[in-house]
Amino acid sequence: MPRTAHTSVPILPVLAERWSPRSFDPETVLTPADLASAFEAARWTPSSNNTQPWRFIAGFRGDATFQTIVDNLMGFNQVWAPGASALVLCVAQKFEPNGEPIAYAMYDLGQAVAHFSIQAHSQGLSVHQMAGIERDALTHAFNLPSGFEAAVVAAVGRLGDADALPEQLAEREKAPRVRHDFEEIVRFEGYAAD
Amino acid sequence: MPRTAHTSVPILPVLAERWSPRSFDPETVLTPADLASAFEAARWTPSSNNTQPWRFIAGFRGDATFQTIVDNLMGFNQVWAPGASALVLCVAQKFEPNGEPIAYAMYDLGQAVAHFSIQAHSQGLSVHQMAGIERDALTHAFNLPSGFEAAVVAAVGRLGDADALPEQLAEREKAPRVRHDFEEIVRFEGYAAD
Repeated sequence: MPRTAHTSVPILPVLAERWSPRSFDPETVLTPADLASAFEAARWTPSSNNTQPWRFIAGFRGDATFQTIVDNLMGFNQVWAPGASALVLCVAQKFEPNGEPIAYAMYDLGQAVAHFSIQAHSQGLSVHQMAGIERDALTHAFNLPSGFEAAVVAAVGRLGDADALPEQLAEREKAPRVRHDFEEIVRFEGYAAD
Repeated sequence: MPRTAHTSVPILPVLAERWSPRSFDPETVLTPADLASAFEAARWTPSSNNTQPWRFIAGFRGDATFQTIVDNLMGFNQVWAPGASALVLCVAQKFEPNGEPIAYAMYDLGQAVAHFSIQAHSQGLSVHQMAGIERDALTHAFNLPSGFEAAVVAAVGRLGDADALPEQLAEREKAPRVRHDFEEIVRFEGYAAD
């Protein structure tokens, strides 16, 4: 079921149509080649001083990487995310090898996953990002180098049937998409004095 | 001068062609209406628990908001950024009103600015994000509500003549665009044991 955003002004279809489902088609099989363009889009994301503080570890349903990620999802993410075709651990480089913090690591990783998601959506795939993950356990399980930390997991696949989800999740899947009003997030001068 | 990324596999043209110039056309005048779609794209960005921890304060060349932002740019950002048509202060909500941290505020703001930039690029505008800003001074200057912090400034305008920049910046503007190798950032299993 498409769930195009009701925008107040037109935006690129790929941005209006992108949303984060929990229902994935359990028959869809993806391979690394299917995600190559999405990773390439992430690779060309801008970052502060071109630090590129992002790394990705992709598992595909049935392989050991996928299972390790599933094992470290929190709460109801363990219910729906195993139905995705791929789970991608998104890693932030938070410190340089000399120990200096990379202040914009999470900001820049967010940008990179946005580019990844937009490219994937343009190829008929859906992406749902999860912060509800066991970050420390994943950092250890994949033996991330010093300074690198598990940050987010992105589930990737083809949109499935919302009604195949457990009832509570199916309701959320079909609820209207909502955002703050435009005027709440955009202004042209500072906030009024208290 | 277009500077399309040399991608190893095809990606959306809007993603391949997007880059972050410092040369902006000084004749181009933008208004809030010109940025409406870019802000709308940001508005529909996904975020952790739909917290939407982003706010934007846009100034246009010649107005007081623009000047306040210029006054709080660091180093050589003060040299080139005043040539942009608009400067957008991107604000992260780092704490809920009850003081609870919003852990993914910077990550989600990064996603929103990515969506903003991609939409703007699709309309013939260029965006260059800057972390080199006086964050505390901007947070105070615009009287941001408690829990909100200045994070990044995005310069927006039409691409200008690289050779109009000071020599050192002009050289950087024309240097090849580089990124880590694909294999360095994407893998399918954990890192080897030390």
